[in-house]
Amino acid sequence: MLKDKVLQSLVLFLGDRVSTASAICTRHGQDESWHPVMAPDAVCFPKSTDEVTKVVSVCASNNVPIIPFGAGTSLEGHIAALKGGVCIDLSKMTEIIAVRSEDMDCTVQPGVTRDQLDKYIRDQGLFFPIDPGAECTLGGMAATRASGTNAVRYGTMRENVLGLTVVLADGRIITTGSRARKSAAGYDLTRLFVGSEGGLGILTELVLRLHSIPEVISSAVVSFPTVEDAVNTVIATIQAAVPIARIELMDEVSIDAVNRYSKLSLPVIPHLFLEFHGTQAAVKEQAEIFSNLSKEFSGQDFQWSVEPEERSKLWVARHNAYYACLALRPGCKGLTTDVCVPISRLAECIAKTRLDVDQSHLLGPLLGHAGDGNFHVIFLVDPENRSEIKEAERLHDRMVERALAMGGTCTGEHGIGLGKIKHLQAEHGDGVDIMRRIKSALDPHNIMNPGKMLPL
Amino acid sequence: MLKDKVLQSLVLFLGDRVSTASAICTRHGQDESWHPVMAPDAVCFPKSTDEVTKVVSVCASNNVPIIPFGAGTSLEGHIAALKGGVCIDLSKMTEIIAVRSEDMDCTVQPGVTRDQLDKYIRDQGLFFPIDPGAECTLGGMAATRASGTNAVRYGTMRENVLGLTVVLADGRIITTGSRARKSAAGYDLTRLFVGSEGGLGILTELVLRLHSIPEVISSAVVSFPTVEDAVNTVIATIQAAVPIARIELMDEVSIDAVNRYSKLSLPVIPHLFLEFHGTQAAVKEQAEIFSNLSKEFSGQDFQWSVEPEERSKLWVARHNAYYACLALRPGCKGLTTDVCVPISRLAECIAKTRLDVDQSHLLGPLLGHAGDGNFHVIFLVDPENRSEIKEAERLHDRMVERALAMGGTCTGEHGIGLGKIKHLQAEHGDGVDIMRRIKSALDPHNIMNPGKMLPL
Repeated sequence: MLKDKVLQSLVLFLGDRVSTASAICTRHGQDESWHPVMAPDAVCFPKSTDEVTKVVSVCASNNVPIIPFGAGTSLEGHIAALKGGVCIDLSKMTEIIAVRSEDMDCTVQPGVTRDQLDKYIRDQGLFFPIDPGAECTLGGMAATRASGTNAVRYGTMRENVLGLTVVLADGRIITTGSRARKSAAGYDLTRLFVGSEGGLGILTELVLRLHSIPEVISSAVVSFPTVEDAVNTVIATIQAAVPIARIELMDEVSIDAVNRYSKLSLPVIPHLFLEFHGTQAAVKEQAEIFSNLSKEFSGQDFQWSVEPEERSKLWVARHNAYYACLALRPGCKGLTTDVCVPISRLAECIAKTRLDVDQSHLLGPLLGHAGDGNFHVIFLVDPENRSEIKEAERLHDRMVERALAMGGTCTGEHGIGLGKIKHLQAEHGDGVDIMRRIKSALDPHNIMNPGKMLPL
Repeated sequence: MLKDKVLQSLVLFLGDRVSTASAICTRHGQDESWHPVMAPDAVCFPKSTDEVTKVVSVCASNNVPIIPFGAGTSLEGHIAALKGGVCIDLSKMTEIIAVRSEDMDCTVQPGVTRDQLDKYIRDQGLFFPIDPGAECTLGGMAATRASGTNAVRYGTMRENVLGLTVVLADGRIITTGSRARKSAAGYDLTRLFVGSEGGLGILTELVLRLHSIPEVISSAVVSFPTVEDAVNTVIATIQAAVPIARIELMDEVSIDAVNRYSKLSLPVIPHLFLEFHGTQAAVKEQAEIFSNLSKEFSGQDFQWSVEPEERSKLWVARHNAYYACLALRPGCKGLTTDVCVPISRLAECIAKTRLDVDQSHLLGPLLGHAGDGNFHVIFLVDPENRSEIKEAERLHDRMVERALAMGGTCTGEHGIGLGKIKHLQAEHGDGVDIMRRIKSALDPHNIMNPGKMLPL
């Protein structure tokens, strides 16, 4: 419970933009995953960096935990209020402060969603390539080092955040990075805050890199008799340095799911969904190289189009995949895994994972950003059923162990949050102690999203 | 002076691979810049991570400063032993531990030079794109977040280091990152150590991203009546999203320098030097788009080739530029500036800089990685002449102020070292305090390259 004086201080400058209503607190205590609700004691809705600073200062003086919140779409319990405290909901900070098309960058507040930004910049021939599945905020995406389907060509938030304004645990404001495309000036604080999951400070402004909408976009779909064939095609494509923009894998279980969900009639075998960006000549050449490679691995029914309507049709299965998978079992929650391995190990890693899943009683469609070596199994669990959760966790543990043994990581894009703390330790060993020291240096009283990434 | 017991401990396990000979210490106390010699008390030549750990442990127990050293080619006094101590020369750690062509990555020891690596991987159709001017080591390049001419397409060391093995100030060894192409697992320690200039730990192994040698490489040269015309062509090229691999600017003073040095007869006007990477069709298309753009800005004498010999000829001026500039004034040293600005401000920034230089009595050829917005003025100074140094520093200060006002950075690729400490403060303000806190958390006794980046 918050002390009265804390609440009074917050109300003093936020008025009705601070709430302790149970429905609002509950809504802010659960993300889109299977992790149980842990509600904060109050939720604030600041509209400026200055207001964030004031909230943080009040909390800091009273040793109250702070949990930053974007759209609540994370998947590892990142926003759970383990020790109560104040949730800072940044979704009202939706200003697109500046778009500089001549430099292909922009400055936005953290509550801007990627959809909002993309609509705003489209007329200027620009787009922002990072596209996690959910309708998330750019602040949340930076905080969790998000990526998505375009990362194989355009990188992740790591590569596309140029600079940040950050409110620190003591209420001070710093700016990191610059608008220069590169810099050797000091420690890379931008990259330190990107992916810090709210544990080091609150991101209140972001300078993002934008990209030119390609002259031509072409989409393609191709199916394969086995997942191995599909993945081997991906490996060959990456090794041939085809500058592919998207190359997404869905296995037969997830294809079956979208057939049901979107009333499609795709053959129930593994598929790759692709996108090529470039000039007319370039996309044609890329598609030809890819098509030839896919034939070497029994690829069939290669379809290709540059027409927007046709392109959407080709990709509809992939676009609806996550919700289609969840719909396979009404009322379930997704316990979503997220390993990423060196591309040469991807086929083996997926094959062994599939074998594990097939031997279990759980349903687990598999799909992923194959070009990065990143894939997800979405275990469809009843969150009330402990034995199901336990089984999913057992399979998940095996996946992570396998990925680490292959030189990979326990999370390609979802982050650590609550759900992967033990896996972070397995992956980074003594490095976690260095993370803890950095956290203590910047947040000595551990008020910034405590218990996430690093254990309480 | 080192205590006898420290020296004895080092000799115990390094034998004759520790030296206190004056010539060796002096050689290790000066980089390639104008900064005066500050020699360490001893130089160690370890051959393994384990030996580095032992050296660090001895120094840590005795509070002796440690200065890591690669090839000594830095430009901001990074290796000056301000408080004496032990230089750890990593140039004997030259093993290429593994090249995994199927994943396009490799693991190397820090003393491997980029030339050594490139020769080793060439037969596998791979190359490493980061190419600072000097024959530097990959460890030094990572430590200073180096870049070079290919950064506009392939990024800098920031984008091309996947993971590190680091010996910390207390002698512990950690590994950061992984071989996965992306990860959301914890704070981005890899990016924290890349560019940390030896202040947080010693890099003893690097996992690097490699790239496929393009099917076709084409080089081009074009000249312009004014620097503005050249830069405006660069801006238009970047904005048109031409995936250019290199786009380098030399002004008339530096062209004059290479004419003399390399016995060329280029017209003494600004030039752009270019490289296109891709398939036969792609490089042709890129060159055509570029050539048309350059004509809009009075570009003339566009020359283009895909033949290796002809390509080398076209680029010889650019390759020899730095030493050609120094040769304009025999016996001088280069006080090299390194600002980087958003591309839209580059023409204005260069024009105002040129005006400053023209109004001074110093000679200062200008050249740069125009596609990144990064350029250098090489002030040719007599390092014994205080008034020349002072004048160069005055001009440099004005350049940095201008770059920062334009949203840029005080150093695109050379780093802070000794020479830019005040500029780091101007650029990052309170952010420097955060850097200091991180430094204290990882190196509480300030033994790791003390006085560099952060003041003593």
